[in-house]
Amino acid sequence: MSIAKEKAVLRNFMSKSTTKARATHECILKATIHCYGVYGVENTTLEQVAAEAGMSRTTVYRYAGNRRELLNKVLLRDANQALSELEVITRYYDNLEEVVLESILFLMRRRNNFEMQHILYGDSSGAQQDDGLPLNILTDLVEQSLTHHYANAESKGLVSSKLPLPLLADWLGRITISLISQPSHFTQTEESLRTYLKAVLCPIFHLPSSTPQPRNE
Amino acid sequence: MSIAKEKAVLRNFMSKSTTKARATHECILKATIHCYGVYGVENTTLEQVAAEAGMSRTTVYRYAGNRRELLNKVLLRDANQALSELEVITRYYDNLEEVVLESILFLMRRRNNFEMQHILYGDSSGAQQDDGLPLNILTDLVEQSLTHHYANAESKGLVSSKLPLPLLADWLGRITISLISQPSHFTQTEESLRTYLKAVLCPIFHLPSSTPQPRNE
Repeated sequence: MSIAKEKAVLRNFMSKSTTKARATHECILKATIHCYGVYGVENTTLEQVAAEAGMSRTTVYRYAGNRRELLNKVLLRDANQALSELEVITRYYDNLEEVVLESILFLMRRRNNFEMQHILYGDSSGAQQDDGLPLNILTDLVEQSLTHHYANAESKGLVSSKLPLPLLADWLGRITISLISQPSHFTQTEESLRTYLKAVLCPIFHLPSSTPQPRNE
Repeated sequence: MSIAKEKAVLRNFMSKSTTKARATHECILKATIHCYGVYGVENTTLEQVAAEAGMSRTTVYRYAGNRRELLNKVLLRDANQALSELEVITRYYDNLEEVVLESILFLMRRRNNFEMQHILYGDSSGAQQDDGLPLNILTDLVEQSLTHHYANAESKGLVSSKLPLPLLADWLGRITISLISQPSHFTQTEESLRTYLKAVLCPIFHLPSSTPQPRNE
């Protein structure tokens, strides 16, 4: 066999095994979410997941060494899925403020209708969960999802220099965690949430008026 | 004994017994904080608290029926103490934005130096805690602490009508919980936190410029 042919066979084999590994992981994650729904996040064991997935314990352990690791993988998959959905939602906005506002409103709509969110946060208990995605991981995802829109707004001079992307992402990460895990009077309906965010979040995107202002700073 | 005299005796007795009850509660709370430091919040039992306070289990149980109730009382006492301290800190500011900014900076300084905060939140683990004061209680406290300053700013026309006090209090409650329980790069030093808050929080206090603006809304 020529080297080129050998490489092609190897590539084909690797791509097949990657696809197979992905299918296995997807199957484990689906079984995990099913078990979370049945036994609760706290009580689900890797053995139960293996049984539900119809796989050996070793396969599951190789994928996630313990419960917390498994939960993190579930959360990360969910977050990545939310990220792809947000790309669709925000595709035709070219204003950073609108992108952020519509993204948060979408995530809250998603939270109220999505199986995963119900399992993690309950219906409206308001209980703060210890189980969410860590802030730094969420911040990275927010930064990733805003990079394109931010660069776009920046190139048009529409972003304040006081609001660099990593700082904005940290703030939005905090707010998203808080709104998703702790409902309040103001987050109850989409309309009240929109009014709320317009008052407390949107002003950070408004550039100072271009008319000359007395400089007191 | 005349009715007036009887009332005076009763008042005296009640005030004495209230003082005694308060001293008992204070003693239980101090013993609880001591036990949290020694055994951890999760592992402290009401029996250990009673032993540390030198009281009967019944006395402690009468004050708090279970661990969570006891923790809530500790948290509420700490929050009320923080509230009194904030009154001192903000007494000579008459600008709502400054009051809020300096209050948050003070609470973070307090968090980094105060025994209670270390016990609850660890040093800088960044772990989100399930044990904090519930959002609605914190929101009430924030509202209480800002009432005077808010009314003052409102009477001078310095607050946007989009930012009623309950809404502002809900937002500040969320932010305070997030900053206290989840440190990040931006909260590491007082200087970086100040820059951060000036960019993401302070703009909500800025009234729209009074010069005529095109109305697109």
